[in-house]
Amino acid sequence: MSDPAQPLHLLRGIGHRIVESIRSGEFPVLEIPDRGTTNIVFDEQRHQFVMGPKKVVRDSSNLKHIRSFAQLVWVASYAKRLLVSGRTSSLRDLYYSAEAFGIRFKDQAESDRTVADLECVTGFSREDFGIFPEERSSIYGAVKMRYTVPGYEGRVIDLTLSPDGFPIGPALVTAEPISADAKLILAVESGGMFSRLIETGAWKRFRAILVHLGGQPPRATRRMIRLLHDALDLPVYIFTDGDPWGMHIARVIISGSANAAHVPGLVVPDAAWIGVTPDDIRDYTLPTEPLNDADLRRLDELSNDVRYSSPECQHHIAGFKSLRKKAEQQAFSRYGMDFVVEHYLADKLG
Amino acid sequence: MSDPAQPLHLLRGIGHRIVESIRSGEFPVLEIPDRGTTNIVFDEQRHQFVMGPKKVVRDSSNLKHIRSFAQLVWVASYAKRLLVSGRTSSLRDLYYSAEAFGIRFKDQAESDRTVADLECVTGFSREDFGIFPEERSSIYGAVKMRYTVPGYEGRVIDLTLSPDGFPIGPALVTAEPISADAKLILAVESGGMFSRLIETGAWKRFRAILVHLGGQPPRATRRMIRLLHDALDLPVYIFTDGDPWGMHIARVIISGSANAAHVPGLVVPDAAWIGVTPDDIRDYTLPTEPLNDADLRRLDELSNDVRYSSPECQHHIAGFKSLRKKAEQQAFSRYGMDFVVEHYLADKLG
Repeated sequence: MSDPAQPLHLLRGIGHRIVESIRSGEFPVLEIPDRGTTNIVFDEQRHQFVMGPKKVVRDSSNLKHIRSFAQLVWVASYAKRLLVSGRTSSLRDLYYSAEAFGIRFKDQAESDRTVADLECVTGFSREDFGIFPEERSSIYGAVKMRYTVPGYEGRVIDLTLSPDGFPIGPALVTAEPISADAKLILAVESGGMFSRLIETGAWKRFRAILVHLGGQPPRATRRMIRLLHDALDLPVYIFTDGDPWGMHIARVIISGSANAAHVPGLVVPDAAWIGVTPDDIRDYTLPTEPLNDADLRRLDELSNDVRYSSPECQHHIAGFKSLRKKAEQQAFSRYGMDFVVEHYLADKLG
Repeated sequence: MSDPAQPLHLLRGIGHRIVESIRSGEFPVLEIPDRGTTNIVFDEQRHQFVMGPKKVVRDSSNLKHIRSFAQLVWVASYAKRLLVSGRTSSLRDLYYSAEAFGIRFKDQAESDRTVADLECVTGFSREDFGIFPEERSSIYGAVKMRYTVPGYEGRVIDLTLSPDGFPIGPALVTAEPISADAKLILAVESGGMFSRLIETGAWKRFRAILVHLGGQPPRATRRMIRLLHDALDLPVYIFTDGDPWGMHIARVIISGSANAAHVPGLVVPDAAWIGVTPDDIRDYTLPTEPLNDADLRRLDELSNDVRYSSPECQHHIAGFKSLRKKAEQQAFSRYGMDFVVEHYLADKLG
């Protein structure tokens, strides 16, 4: 992942500019790319959301700006202390730490937004500063990673060592992939499926590095997938429940989200959603549930979403709408414990 | 953990009795300890909930019973197949697998209840049969565990190998503790605190095996704590948020729950809740939030709960009621990143 020297250098630059302004008798000002919806556009070429050119200003001479200016400067200084001391922090911890410095946030949503401001200003993501949410997903597979966190620098871990998988936490996200005996990355939605693919040896059969998503995964998980995809030159396949929500988990990995438009290094445009597609539900005669109102509304939203403009995506949306049914990954268990490996994944991954 | 031969032997015994009934021209009958609230009593001596003597009968000659009888027999046969093949299953997977055998469950709640029936009949817990929920918490510390799952039998893992911790999944829960360089087990509620205690080296300073709970932990996590406590003869300390919910996370680890009264091997009666107590909130002048209506109602419930009959528990409840405030574990961050280790835990763990 990124070298801590780079974000540190940027933070110092911001600090120096602020100090120079003050020394020359001027109120310091910070410019931030505007994260408003009108400034987030979908780049068809790169097939992802990007920030437009608009900026907003935090001007410390403006009484209305002084609070958010101070919050942003404090978050930058907190990030710097994390980098210098080789520590990490949860977003929650950051919120509480502000108290000690007399910096008030109304609630954690406000401090989280300020962290996003810091990401916009620096072009780095919060994980580069050692700031993480609490959620973790897991990974398992024949890949060796070299840690870079203090106390573990240089140590290499083989991600098949623990048959329960490894949490994608601060240490693993900043580790470097060294080598792998794999030919693809397979991200799966449910923990049950993740365990099944480990214990049946499916990971060996398909030479797959397995990633457990668990719903919309934390950003660290998307970075991890992208990192392995880039560093090891492996294709990415995504296997979710067969409903609008599962389909969208895959879409966010492939094309990103407006929320994280300012964060580089998350999308994998050539990743593929293998299913459960509406066609799969029909072809494999899976046990289903009817789509409910929320599911149908979601489909309507997605049919107008720029990320779903391809004929393939529109085909899936139309498929769900005409079928009016959904099926979980686990639905394959109807045909026995190993059917999903022996037949479904064998069909899909060849 | 338990040897698969034992639950397998029990399942076979049940199967044989059913077959013998049928062979001798009788309708098979199963007797199950009654899990109704009137049959769950708190054993003051053992300081935990236990099942009373009442039984319910599933009689296959009774049309009203035939459905639940068949469901229970199918769950037993599914558990047997898991044990024989060395596989595990999520509760969700079990629910879907029933379809293949023409066994219908109304919803997963019904199949989960049938799994609980199997636990009652056999006296083993679902984890002994390889049946797990999807949730996982984590563990980290200087302890070596020997795996028993197929493909990993005999392999030893050191739980300091991954600085992000290890998920408490099917493989780790069935592993055997071999040796440890630790003098206590410290269970913490939040993932942020878990990471903090790893990266500050607090685990080394206090010679602690760290367990991340993440709210009310899955039963597998409680088993893991109990297993380490028994096998390594280590005291258990629990560090949660300072509110009725955090206090109750600790209480369930210590005295168990009525829901799991039929499951042996979960409670740790001599574990201690170290805080955040109402006294701590005052003594450390922590940033707080007011207790809301739900918090106050919960306190009223807990003050009548048999598990809170000790003077110490009543003192904490009274403390919250008079303070009318709560504080999170992260609240110590007000005094700097390391205060919680340098002062609070140093005070509490000596």
